[in-house]
Amino acid sequence: MDEIKLIDIRKNILSDNENQAGIIRSDLAEKKIFMVNLMASPGAGKTSVILQTIKRLRDTLRLGVIEGDIESLVDSEKITAQGIPAVQIRTGGACHLDAPMITPALKELDLDNLDLVFIENIGNLVCPAEFDTGADLKAMILSVPEGDDKVLKYPLMFSVCDVLLVNKIDYLDGSDFNMQELYSRVRRVNSKIKIFQISCKTGKGLDEWCGWLAEKIQAKFKA
Amino acid sequence: MDEIKLIDIRKNILSDNENQAGIIRSDLAEKKIFMVNLMASPGAGKTSVILQTIKRLRDTLRLGVIEGDIESLVDSEKITAQGIPAVQIRTGGACHLDAPMITPALKELDLDNLDLVFIENIGNLVCPAEFDTGADLKAMILSVPEGDDKVLKYPLMFSVCDVLLVNKIDYLDGSDFNMQELYSRVRRVNSKIKIFQISCKTGKGLDEWCGWLAEKIQAKFKA
Repeated sequence: MDEIKLIDIRKNILSDNENQAGIIRSDLAEKKIFMVNLMASPGAGKTSVILQTIKRLRDTLRLGVIEGDIESLVDSEKITAQGIPAVQIRTGGACHLDAPMITPALKELDLDNLDLVFIENIGNLVCPAEFDTGADLKAMILSVPEGDDKVLKYPLMFSVCDVLLVNKIDYLDGSDFNMQELYSRVRRVNSKIKIFQISCKTGKGLDEWCGWLAEKIQAKFKA
Repeated sequence: MDEIKLIDIRKNILSDNENQAGIIRSDLAEKKIFMVNLMASPGAGKTSVILQTIKRLRDTLRLGVIEGDIESLVDSEKITAQGIPAVQIRTGGACHLDAPMITPALKELDLDNLDLVFIENIGNLVCPAEFDTGADLKAMILSVPEGDDKVLKYPLMFSVCDVLLVNKIDYLDGSDFNMQELYSRVRRVNSKIKIFQISCKTGKGLDEWCGWLAEKIQAKFKA
Protein backbone atom coordinates (compact mmCIF):
# COMPACT_ATOMS: atom_id res chain seq x y z
CA MET A 1 0.00 0.00 0.00
CA ASP A 2 1.22 3.43 -0.84
CA GLU A 3 2.11 5.83 1.89
CA ILE A 4 -0.23 8.71 2.41
CA LYS A 5 1.19 11.83 0.80
CA LEU A 6 1.06 14.82 3.02
CA ILE A 7 1.37 18.30 1.62
CA ASP A 8 2.30 20.60 4.44
CA ILE A 9 1.53 23.99 2.90
CA ARG A 10 2.93 25.93 5.80
CA LYS A 11 6.19 23.97 5.75
CA ASN A 12 6.50 24.38 1.98
CA ILE A 13 5.94 28.12 2.18
CA LEU A 14 8.56 28.52 4.89
CA SER A 15 11.07 26.34 3.04
CA ASP A 16 10.59 28.22 -0.28
CA ASN A 17 11.09 31.40 1.66
CA GLU A 18 14.32 30.13 3.21
CA ASN A 19 15.74 29.21 -0.18
CA GLN A 20 14.97 32.66 -1.49
CA ALA A 21 16.43 34.28 1.63
CA GLY A 22 19.64 32.31 1.16
CA ILE A 23 19.98 33.61 -2.40
CA ILE A 24 19.45 37.19 -1.23
CA ARG A 25 22.06 36.80 1.49
CA SER A 26 24.75 35.45 -0.82
CA ASP A 27 24.00 38.07 -3.52
CA LEU A 28 24.36 40.85 -0.96
CA ALA A 29 27.53 39.32 0.53
CA GLU A 30 29.10 39.37 -2.92
CA LYS A 31 28.43 43.09 -3.11
CA LYS A 32 29.59 43.57 0.50
CA ILE A 33 26.19 44.90 1.53
CA PHE A 34 24.96 44.29 5.06
CA MET A 35 21.20 44.03 5.63
CA VAL A 36 19.28 44.53 8.88
CA ASN A 37 15.68 43.34 9.37
CA LEU A 38 14.08 45.67 11.93
CA MET A 39 10.90 44.44 13.62
CA ALA A 40 8.60 45.82 16.32
CA SER A 41 5.01 46.58 17.35
CA PRO A 42 3.23 49.49 15.68
CA GLY A 43 4.55 52.74 17.10
CA ALA A 44 7.56 51.27 18.91
CA GLY A 45 9.87 53.56 16.93
CA LYS A 46 11.14 51.64 13.88
CA THR A 47 11.30 54.66 11.58
CA SER A 48 12.79 56.84 14.33
CA VAL A 49 15.55 54.30 15.00
CA ILE A 50 16.36 54.14 11.28
CA LEU A 51 16.45 57.94 11.04
CA GLN A 52 18.72 58.19 14.09
CA THR A 53 20.98 55.47 12.70
CA ILE A 54 21.18 57.25 9.33
CA LYS A 55 22.23 60.42 11.13
CA ARG A 56 25.09 58.66 12.89
CA LEU A 57 26.34 56.35 10.12
CA ARG A 58 25.77 58.30 6.91
CA ASP A 59 29.27 59.79 6.87
CA THR A 60 30.93 56.38 6.91
CA LEU A 61 28.38 54.08 5.21
CA ARG A 62 26.10 54.40 2.17
CA LEU A 63 22.59 53.53 3.38
CA GLY A 64 19.34 52.44 1.76
CA VAL A 65 15.96 51.50 3.25
CA ILE A 66 13.21 49.05 2.31
CA GLU A 67 9.96 50.11 3.95
CA GLY A 68 7.18 47.59 4.50
CA ASP A 69 3.67 48.87 5.07
CA ILE A 70 0.18 47.61 4.54
CA GLU A 71 -0.77 51.03 3.24
CA SER A 72 0.71 54.52 2.97
CA LEU A 73 4.08 55.99 2.08
CA VAL A 74 4.62 58.10 5.21
CA ASP A 75 7.72 56.25 6.40
CA SER A 76 9.43 56.24 3.00
CA GLU A 77 8.85 59.95 2.72
CA LYS A 78 10.64 60.54 6.02
CA ILE A 79 13.64 58.55 4.75
CA THR A 80 13.90 60.20 1.32
CA ALA A 81 13.55 63.61 3.00
CA GLN A 82 16.99 62.80 4.47
CA GLY A 83 18.41 62.15 0.99
CA ILE A 84 18.53 58.40 1.60
CA PRO A 85 17.10 56.06 -1.07
CA ALA A 86 13.96 54.19 0.01
CA VAL A 87 11.77 51.55 -1.60
CA GLN A 88 8.24 51.08 -0.34
CA ILE A 89 6.65 47.64 -0.30
CA ARG A 90 2.92 47.99 0.05
CA THR A 91 1.66 44.58 1.17
CA GLY A 92 -2.00 45.50 0.84
CA GLY A 93 -2.99 43.29 3.78
CA ALA A 94 -0.12 40.91 4.48
CA CYS A 95 1.12 41.20 8.05
CA HIS A 96 4.82 40.51 7.42
CA LEU A 97 7.54 40.78 4.80
CA ASP A 98 9.13 37.69 3.29
CA ALA A 99 12.08 36.99 0.99
CA PRO A 100 10.04 36.99 -2.26
CA MET A 101 8.98 40.57 -1.45
CA ILE A 102 12.55 41.66 -0.67
CA THR A 103 14.05 40.43 -3.97
CA PRO A 104 12.18 42.91 -6.24
CA ALA A 105 12.63 45.69 -3.66
CA LEU A 106 16.42 45.23 -3.73
CA LYS A 107 16.32 45.52 -7.55
CA GLU A 108 14.98 49.05 -7.10
CA LEU A 109 18.08 50.07 -5.12
CA ASP A 110 21.46 50.97 -6.63
CA LEU A 111 23.29 48.07 -4.99
CA ASP A 112 26.68 49.05 -6.41
CA ASN A 113 26.56 52.13 -4.23
CA LEU A 114 25.29 50.80 -0.91
CA ASP A 115 26.91 49.35 2.21
CA LEU A 116 23.94 48.95 4.54
CA VAL A 117 20.25 48.28 3.86
CA PHE A 118 17.59 48.50 6.55
CA ILE A 119 14.33 46.61 6.17
CA GLU A 120 11.56 48.21 8.20
CA ASN A 121 9.17 45.31 8.64
CA ILE A 122 5.39 45.54 9.23
CA GLY A 123 4.46 46.64 12.77
CA ASN A 124 3.72 43.23 14.26
CA LEU A 125 5.42 41.04 16.87
CA VAL A 126 3.98 37.80 15.50
CA CYS A 127 4.43 36.75 11.85
CA PRO A 128 7.54 38.75 10.89
CA ALA A 129 9.46 36.55 13.37
CA GLU A 130 8.80 33.49 11.21
CA PHE A 131 10.07 34.74 7.87
CA ASP A 132 13.75 35.02 6.96
CA THR A 133 14.15 38.07 4.70
CA GLY A 134 17.77 37.37 3.79
CA ALA A 135 19.03 39.93 6.29
CA ASP A 136 22.36 39.46 8.12
CA LEU A 137 20.98 40.75 11.38
CA LYS A 138 17.55 40.54 12.97
CA ALA A 139 16.87 43.48 15.25
CA MET A 140 13.78 44.22 17.28
CA ILE A 141 12.54 47.19 19.24
CA LEU A 142 10.50 47.01 22.41
CA SER A 143 9.30 50.38 23.63
CA VAL A 144 8.94 51.01 27.35
CA PRO A 145 5.20 51.92 27.20
CA GLU A 146 4.45 48.44 25.81
CA GLY A 147 5.44 46.90 29.14
CA ASP A 148 8.06 44.44 30.37
CA ASP A 149 5.89 41.32 29.91
CA LYS A 150 5.95 41.13 26.12
CA VAL A 151 8.56 38.35 26.10
CA LEU A 152 6.03 36.01 27.70
CA LYS A 153 3.52 36.67 24.95
CA TYR A 154 5.70 36.90 21.85
CA PRO A 155 8.63 34.60 22.75
CA LEU A 156 9.44 33.67 19.15
CA MET A 157 10.25 37.26 18.19
CA PHE A 158 12.60 37.67 21.15
CA SER A 159 14.23 34.30 20.52
CA VAL A 160 15.04 34.84 16.82
CA CYS A 161 16.54 38.34 17.15
CA ASP A 162 20.25 39.13 17.43
CA VAL A 163 19.69 42.48 19.06
CA LEU A 164 16.97 44.13 21.15
CA LEU A 165 16.66 47.89 21.31
CA VAL A 166 14.65 48.94 24.36
CA ASN A 167 13.35 52.27 23.08
CA LYS A 168 11.60 55.24 24.75
CA ILE A 169 13.57 54.89 27.99
CA ASP A 170 12.62 58.55 28.57
CA TYR A 171 9.25 57.06 29.61
CA LEU A 172 10.84 55.04 32.44
CA ASP A 173 10.34 57.77 35.03
CA GLY A 174 7.15 57.10 36.95
CA SER A 175 6.45 53.93 34.99
CA ASP A 176 6.24 50.44 36.49
CA PHE A 177 8.42 48.99 33.74
CA ASN A 178 10.95 46.66 35.40
CA MET A 179 14.14 46.64 33.30
CA GLN A 180 15.78 43.90 35.34
CA GLU A 181 12.72 41.70 34.96
CA LEU A 182 12.74 42.36 31.20
CA TYR A 183 16.40 41.37 30.89
CA SER A 184 15.92 38.13 32.78
CA ARG A 185 12.82 37.24 30.76
CA VAL A 186 14.63 37.96 27.51
CA ARG A 187 17.75 36.00 28.54
CA ARG A 188 15.57 33.00 29.36
CA VAL A 189 14.45 32.69 25.70
CA ASN A 190 17.63 34.04 24.11
CA SER A 191 20.87 33.98 26.07
CA LYS A 192 22.93 35.49 23.24
CA ILE A 193 20.83 38.55 22.38
CA LYS A 194 22.58 41.92 22.60
CA ILE A 195 20.49 44.57 24.38
CA PHE A 196 20.71 48.36 24.11
CA GLN A 197 18.64 50.87 26.06
CA ILE A 198 17.90 53.83 23.82
CA SER A 199 15.75 56.92 23.43
CA CYS A 200 15.21 58.41 20.00
CA LYS A 201 13.86 61.48 21.78
CA THR A 202 16.88 62.26 23.99
CA GLY A 203 19.47 60.42 21.86
CA LYS A 204 20.58 58.24 24.76
CA GLY A 205 22.20 54.91 23.85
CA LEU A 206 22.12 55.55 20.09
CA ASP A 207 25.86 56.07 19.68
CA GLU A 208 26.45 52.74 21.42
CA TRP A 209 23.97 50.94 19.12
CA CYS A 210 25.39 52.53 15.97
CA GLY A 211 28.98 51.86 17.03
CA TRP A 212 28.17 48.21 17.67
CA LEU A 213 26.38 47.90 14.30
CA ALA A 214 29.27 49.52 12.42
CA GLU A 215 31.67 47.05 14.03
CA LYS A 216 29.45 44.12 13.07
CA ILE A 217 29.48 45.26 9.46
CA GLN A 218 33.22 45.79 9.44
CA ALA A 219 33.82 42.38 11.01
CA LYS A 220 31.71 40.65 8.38
CA PHE A 221 33.51 42.10 5.39
CA LYS A 222 37.04 42.27 6.80
CA ALA A 223 37.84 38.64 6.10
CA MET B 1 -14.63 23.65 -22.95
CA ASP B 2 -15.13 23.63 -19.24
CA GLU B 3 -14.62 26.78 -17.27
CA ILE B 4 -11.54 26.92 -15.15
CA LYS B 5 -12.42 26.19 -11.55
CA LEU B 6 -10.88 28.61 -9.17
CA ILE B 7 -10.53 27.78 -5.50
CA ASP B 8 -9.97 31.01 -3.65
CA ILE B 9 -8.65 29.69 -0.35
CA ARG B 10 -8.58 33.09 1.30
CA LYS B 11 -12.19 33.83 0.30
CA ASN B 12 -13.35 30.40 1.46
CA ILE B 13 -11.66 30.79 4.82
CA LEU B 14 -13.21 34.19 5.39
CA SER B 15 -16.65 33.00 4.31
CA ASP B 16 -16.53 29.90 6.55
CA ASN B 17 -15.49 32.17 9.37
CA GLU B 18 -18.42 34.51 8.74
CA ASN B 19 -20.91 31.64 8.84
CA GLN B 20 -19.50 30.48 12.15
CA ALA B 21 -19.50 34.03 13.51
CA GLY B 22 -23.18 34.37 12.57
CA ILE B 23 -24.03 31.22 14.51
CA ILE B 24 -22.14 32.49 17.58
CA ARG B 25 -23.91 35.84 17.42
CA SER B 26 -27.40 34.34 17.25
CA ASP B 27 -26.64 31.78 19.99
CA LEU B 28 -25.45 34.58 22.28
CA ALA B 29 -28.42 36.82 21.42
CA GLU B 30 -30.75 34.03 22.47
CA LYS B 31 -29.07 33.97 25.85
CA LYS B 32 -29.02 37.79 26.00
CA ILE B 33 -25.22 37.85 26.18
CA PHE B 34 -23.35 40.78 24.66
CA MET B 35 -19.84 40.15 23.34
CA VAL B 36 -17.06 42.68 22.73
CA ASN B 37 -14.00 41.95 20.57
CA LEU B 38 -11.15 44.09 21.90
CA MET B 39 -8.19 44.61 19.58
CA ALA B 40 -4.93 46.59 19.80
CA SER B 41 -1.15 46.54 19.39
CA PRO B 42 0.93 44.68 21.96
CA GLY B 43 1.09 46.72 25.15
CA ALA B 44 -1.63 49.23 24.24
CA GLY B 45 -3.57 48.26 27.36
CA LYS B 46 -6.12 45.59 26.43
CA THR B 47 -5.96 43.72 29.73
CA SER B 48 -5.93 46.98 31.71
CA VAL B 49 -9.05 48.23 29.91
CA ILE B 50 -10.83 44.95 30.63
CA LEU B 51 -9.81 45.08 34.31
CA GLN B 52 -11.01 48.70 34.61
CA THR B 53 -14.27 47.82 32.87
CA ILE B 54 -14.80 44.84 35.19
CA LYS B 55 -14.32 47.17 38.17
CA ARG B 56 -17.03 49.56 36.95
CA LEU B 57 -19.61 47.10 35.58
CA ARG B 58 -19.33 44.04 37.84
CA ASP B 59 -22.09 45.21 40.18
CA THR B 60 -24.64 45.44 37.37
CA LEU B 61 -23.46 42.86 34.84
CA ARG B 62 -22.08 39.32 35.04
CA LEU B 63 -18.82 39.28 33.10
CA GLY B 64 -16.58 36.68 31.49
CA VAL B 65 -13.40 36.97 29.44
CA ILE B 66 -11.89 35.01 26.56
CA GLU B 67 -8.15 35.65 26.40
CA GLY B 68 -6.24 35.10 23.17
CA ASP B 69 -2.49 34.68 23.34
CA ILE B 70 0.18 33.00 21.33
CA GLU B 71 1.77 31.80 24.53
CA SER B 72 1.41 32.31 28.30
CA LEU B 73 -1.46 32.63 30.74
CA VAL B 74 -0.49 35.96 32.33
CA ASP B 75 -3.57 37.88 31.18
CA SER B 76 -6.04 35.17 32.22
CA GLU B 77 -4.44 35.05 35.64
CA LYS B 78 -5.03 38.80 36.09
CA ILE B 79 -8.72 38.32 35.23
CA THR B 80 -9.36 35.31 37.45
CA ALA B 81 -7.57 37.10 40.31
CA GLN B 82 -10.57 39.46 40.20
CA GLY B 83 -12.98 36.54 40.58
CA ILE B 84 -14.07 36.81 36.95
CA PRO B 85 -14.19 33.63 34.82
CA ALA B 86 -11.61 33.53 32.03
CA VAL B 87 -10.84 31.09 29.22
CA GLN B 88 -7.41 31.16 27.62
CA ILE B 89 -7.01 30.40 23.92
CA ARG B 90 -3.39 29.61 23.21
CA THR B 91 -2.99 30.00 19.43
CA GLY B 92 0.57 28.65 19.38
CA GLY B 93 1.55 30.94 16.53
CA ALA B 94 -1.62 32.27 14.90
CA CYS B 95 -1.70 36.05 14.89
CA HIS B 96 -5.45 36.53 15.33
CA LEU B 97 -8.56 34.90 16.77
CA ASP B 98 -11.35 33.67 14.53
CA ALA B 99 -14.87 32.34 15.05
CA PRO B 100 -13.86 28.64 15.06
CA MET B 101 -11.59 29.41 18.04
CA ILE B 102 -14.32 31.32 19.90
CA THR B 103 -16.94 28.54 19.70
CA PRO B 104 -15.08 26.06 21.94
CA ALA B 105 -13.95 28.89 24.24
CA LEU B 106 -17.58 29.93 24.83
CA LYS B 107 -18.41 26.30 25.74
CA GLU B 108 -15.99 26.64 28.65
CA LEU B 109 -17.98 29.54 30.11
CA ASP B 110 -21.20 29.22 32.11
CA LEU B 111 -23.33 31.07 29.55
CA ASP B 112 -26.51 30.85 31.63
CA ASN B 113 -24.89 33.16 34.15
CA LEU B 114 -23.26 35.80 31.97
CA ASP B 115 -24.34 39.14 30.47
CA LEU B 116 -21.13 40.39 28.91
CA VAL B 117 -18.14 38.57 27.42
CA PHE B 118 -14.93 40.32 26.45
CA ILE B 119 -12.62 38.80 23.87
CA GLU B 120 -9.07 40.01 24.29
CA ASN B 121 -7.65 39.45 20.83
CA ILE B 122 -3.96 38.86 19.93
CA GLY B 123 -1.84 42.04 20.12
CA ASN B 124 -1.80 42.92 16.42
CA LEU B 125 -3.33 45.72 14.32
CA VAL B 126 -3.36 43.69 11.12
CA CYS B 127 -5.06 40.28 10.88
CA PRO B 128 -7.56 40.49 13.78
CA ALA B 129 -9.32 43.23 11.76
CA GLU B 130 -10.23 40.71 9.06
CA PHE B 131 -11.89 38.05 11.17
CA ASP B 132 -15.40 38.32 12.58
CA THR B 133 -15.45 36.59 15.96
CA GLY B 134 -19.22 36.76 16.41
CA ALA B 135 -18.93 39.75 18.75
CA ASP B 136 -21.63 42.45 18.85
CA LEU B 137 -19.10 45.23 19.15
CA LYS B 138 -15.61 45.68 17.77
CA ALA B 139 -13.49 47.90 19.98
CA MET B 140 -9.90 48.94 19.51
CA ILE B 141 -7.34 50.69 21.65
CA LEU B 142 -4.69 53.05 20.37
CA SER B 143 -2.23 54.15 23.03
CA VAL B 144 -0.72 57.63 22.89
CA PRO B 145 2.93 56.42 22.77
CA GLU B 146 2.16 54.57 19.51
CA GLY B 147 1.67 57.89 17.73
CA ASP B 148 -1.14 59.65 15.88
CA ASP B 149 -0.24 58.25 12.42
CA LYS B 150 -1.34 54.65 12.93
CA VAL B 151 -4.58 55.19 10.98
CA LEU B 152 -2.55 55.72 7.82
CA LYS B 153 -0.79 52.40 8.26
CA TYR B 154 -3.55 50.16 9.60
CA PRO B 155 -6.68 51.69 8.03
CA LEU B 156 -8.66 48.44 8.00
CA MET B 157 -8.54 48.11 11.80
CA PHE B 158 -9.79 51.67 12.29
CA SER B 159 -12.48 51.26 9.63
CA VAL B 160 -14.03 48.05 11.02
CA CYS B 161 -14.25 49.13 14.67
CA ASP B 162 -17.32 50.60 16.36
CA VAL B 163 -15.36 52.27 19.10
CA LEU B 164 -11.83 53.58 19.58
CA LEU B 165 -10.34 53.97 23.03
CA VAL B 166 -7.38 56.34 22.97
CA ASN B 167 -5.51 55.03 26.00
CA LYS B 168 -2.57 56.35 28.06
CA ILE B 169 -3.61 59.99 27.66
CA ASP B 170 -1.48 60.59 30.78
CA TYR B 171 1.42 60.40 28.29
CA LEU B 172 0.11 63.40 26.29
CA ASP B 173 2.10 65.95 28.29
CA GLY B 174 5.31 66.73 26.49
CA SER B 175 4.47 64.37 23.62
CA ASP B 176 4.00 65.43 19.98
CA PHE B 177 0.83 63.35 19.69
CA ASN B 178 -1.75 65.49 17.87
CA MET B 179 -5.23 64.47 19.07
CA GLN B 180 -7.03 66.66 16.54
CA GLU B 181 -5.02 65.16 13.70
CA LEU B 182 -5.82 61.66 15.01
CA TYR B 183 -9.56 62.40 15.09
CA SER B 184 -9.61 63.76 11.55
CA ARG B 185 -7.58 60.80 10.24
CA VAL B 186 -9.88 58.34 12.00
CA ARG B 187 -13.04 60.09 10.78
CA ARG B 188 -11.76 59.94 7.20
CA VAL B 189 -11.79 56.10 7.26
CA ASN B 190 -14.71 55.69 9.66
CA SER B 191 -17.18 58.52 10.13
CA LYS B 192 -19.35 56.59 12.61
CA ILE B 193 -16.72 55.42 15.09
CA LYS B 194 -17.22 56.46 18.71
CA ILE B 195 -14.04 57.74 20.36
CA PHE B 196 -13.17 57.90 24.06
CA GLN B 197 -9.99 59.34 25.54
CA ILE B 198 -9.01 57.27 28.54
CA SER B 199 -6.20 56.53 30.97
CA CYS B 200 -6.16 53.25 32.85
CA LYS B 201 -3.52 54.79 35.09
CA THR B 202 -5.47 57.90 36.23
CA GLY B 203 -8.96 56.50 35.55
CA LYS B 204 -9.87 59.38 33.27
CA GLY B 205 -12.60 58.72 30.71
CA LEU B 206 -13.33 55.19 31.94
CA ASP B 207 -16.71 55.99 33.50
CA GLU B 208 -17.81 57.50 30.20
CA TRP B 209 -16.69 54.42 28.24
CA CYS B 210 -18.34 52.02 30.68
CA GLY B 211 -21.54 54.05 30.80
CA TRP B 212 -21.75 54.07 27.02
CA LEU B 213 -21.10 50.31 26.85
CA ALA B 214 -23.75 49.55 29.49
CA GLU B 215 -26.28 51.60 27.50
CA LYS B 216 -25.38 49.74 24.28
CA ILE B 217 -26.01 46.42 26.01
CA GLN B 218 -29.30 47.59 27.50
CA ALA B 219 -30.46 48.97 24.16
CA LYS B 220 -29.75 45.68 22.40
CA PHE B 221 -31.75 43.50 24.77
CA LYS B 222 -34.58 45.89 25.59
CA ALA B 223 -36.57 45.18 22.42
